[in-house]
Amino acid sequence: MLETSQNGCKNKNFLHRFAAMQVVVLLTDFGWEGPYIGQMEAAALAAAHRVRVVHLMHDAPRFRPREAAYLLAAAVEALPKDWVVCAVVDPEVGGARRAVALKTERRWFVGPDNGLLAIAAKRAQEASWYALPIPDEASASFHGRDVFAPAAARLAAGLPCPMQRIDDPVGRDWPIEDARVIYIDGFGNAMLALWGDRPRRLRLHGKELCWARTFCDVPKAEALAYCNSLGLVEIAVREGSAAARFGLAIGDPVELLD
Amino acid sequence: MLETSQNGCKNKNFLHRFAAMQVVVLLTDFGWEGPYIGQMEAAALAAAHRVRVVHLMHDAPRFRPREAAYLLAAAVEALPKDWVVCAVVDPEVGGARRAVALKTERRWFVGPDNGLLAIAAKRAQEASWYALPIPDEASASFHGRDVFAPAAARLAAGLPCPMQRIDDPVGRDWPIEDARVIYIDGFGNAMLALWGDRPRRLRLHGKELCWARTFCDVPKAEALAYCNSLGLVEIAVREGSAAARFGLAIGDPVELLD
Amino acid sequence: MLETSQNGCKNKNFLHRFAAMQVVVLLTDFGWEGPYIGQMEAAALAAAHRVRVVHLMHDAPRFRPREAAYLLAAAVEALPKDWVVCAVVDPEVGGARRAVALKTERRWFVGPDNGLLAIAAKRAQEASWYALPIPDEASASFHGRDVFAPAAARLAAGLPCPMQRIDDPVGRDWPIEDARVIYIDGFGNAMLALWGDRPRRLRLHGKELCWARTFCDVPKAEALAYCNSLGLVEIAVREGSAAARFGLAIGDPVELLD
Repeated sequence: MLETSQNGCKNKNFLHRFAAMQVVVLLTDFGWEGPYIGQMEAAALAAAHRVRVVHLMHDAPRFRPREAAYLLAAAVEALPKDWVVCAVVDPEVGGARRAVALKTERRWFVGPDNGLLAIAAKRAQEASWYALPIPDEASASFHGRDVFAPAAARLAAGLPCPMQRIDDPVGRDWPIEDARVIYIDGFGNAMLALWGDRPRRLRLHGKELCWARTFCDVPKAEALAYCNSLGLVEIAVREGSAAARFGLAIGDPVELLD
Repeated sequence: MLETSQNGCKNKNFLHRFAAMQVVVLLTDFGWEGPYIGQMEAAALAAAHRVRVVHLMHDAPRFRPREAAYLLAAAVEALPKDWVVCAVVDPEVGGARRAVALKTERRWFVGPDNGLLAIAAKRAQEASWYALPIPDEASASFHGRDVFAPAAARLAAGLPCPMQRIDDPVGRDWPIEDARVIYIDGFGNAMLALWGDRPRRLRLHGKELCWARTFCDVPKAEALAYCNSLGLVEIAVREGSAAARFGLAIGDPVELLD
Repeated sequence: MLETSQNGCKNKNFLHRFAAMQVVVLLTDFGWEGPYIGQMEAAALAAAHRVRVVHLMHDAPRFRPREAAYLLAAAVEALPKDWVVCAVVDPEVGGARRAVALKTERRWFVGPDNGLLAIAAKRAQEASWYALPIPDEASASFHGRDVFAPAAARLAAGLPCPMQRIDDPVGRDWPIEDARVIYIDGFGNAMLALWGDRPRRLRLHGKELCWARTFCDVPKAEALAYCNSLGLVEIAVREGSAAARFGLAIGDPVELLD
């Protein structure tokens, strides 16, 4: 990507500043309504001008950092190295919970210390945790804008970001998978906190689900379980809604036969 | 837009890389929910770092490439030349349908070969079609992220993108207009697959609709037909919902009197 | 942020073009549905290539410029200086209402002359108003795309933008606060057109609301009033919906006791 000009103007630092991509990826439970995600993007840009903001998702399980932790780990796994993830599912904002940063071999994560980043840490080979200071001028109710987005932008841009090593993040004892629904998408597909790298036998309403490669392998309106594009086991109905068919909601357990 | 510096540092290629805008425009039926459109944007940025992504719309008629084809053609017609359109309404993803690219005198389009790009091709003066390879490592269920967004980004950036000429795209026999509802927007306005460059006489529930220049030309709560900002005929109710008033849904035919 | 290269290539203008951030902030009542906000972003980029577009919010009170005016003033107050705000809540589009630009000591605003920018002007120390021409080729129904977004982009980029001084904008007689609901967010929190820089005594359904610093200061499911992250008084229920609890809708008055 770097190139040197042909005429002796070889300021590599200068070139490098434009060549390196600085990306902050946002994942929240704020929804697209209101000024919240816009203000987070604004705060990131104001903190580090060359940062680009990608809105990964804003309908993570609301008020449920535990379910969101599995979804987050899956949704960011394949993102390019060094892109920084800024995650906010934060029902205790303004209370005593800490703000944290997590460094893995792939990237920085920032978010509340409520387990939201815990599964991403478990899936990584290296994981170091840090506490982020909460500035006095931060609002009590919107750390996404006042703490997390600016910190993520500074980390993405390589700017100094004060923090202190910790070793007791919330969620470090959570299991790396869990046979429960963690997300229902706009199509009614239900994702589970199970990794889909091998076929899994699931039973719903007394009947075992067919394991398929994808929707097209079953007839229209048929139910299936399969490894979705995030790498998670997902229960789906071709051109229909699995959530409606089976009455599934976030947090519901499913029966795992193997 | 290009400028040459005043001091002999005239690397025009270098300047050009910053001056040329490389834009990928996304149109899908994924909705704003879930990690899908965020992952598509990420895939585009990862494939070509200078690309900018514009989210044109994500509520194209779900699972209905035919209705979406008219909407797409209208929604992108006035976009600047050379911006690349990446369109995904793709119920057969993972099946045998091809991935295609379309080149017109204005721009590249990429998407599934299910007719989604067919009306844009009909509206163009020149249209060449190509099949895009589907990489082995692509997921079975999310070609938007794994095939279409990277291809669109590479085309926008002028990077090589292997493809093979074809002459049998799906939808080449579809009519260039059709008196049916193809989209209902958040205000309840119902767009038809009819071009609005001249007044059209429409009958709904036995009564002919008034043809107006815009909402302000009729009293509040009154129904009208007019040429909307996309250039399509639209049925609307001033400060109300035409879809609710007339019970309209996507695919419904309307009576065209001329 | 500016830096001079080490080798005599000192075209500061050139550097400056990349260093200065040109941002257009969009606030509309269009919702995220349809091609509308995507086309506005496209129009801004097409008008000024280096502009970055931040989608601040698209669910401002629909068809209600008066309520939206308070929300707008609060939502943009802390944005970086010189970022340009492009606001559209515009039920009279295509009618006789003017298009206006407002210059304060902090930034430019553009939007319809229906009071939408009036409270931002009242909150500023300096406010000058201008009428923007509406080009003949503008559509009758979508000035957000055809008038406001391009004007905002040109102002952000420092490009010429013809306009004429005016002194009679709509809304100049509106009060600077008003004890009414102006917005209900996705969590069911109800914002009022009251500035929250001091505790306020509010009565709802005959009972005075507790004034708190934030959600965490009250038990789960408890109601509170507090200064929200925009600086407005907000009625909330911890991990619940105040709008549902109290049956609140946009425009509803609340009883202010002091």
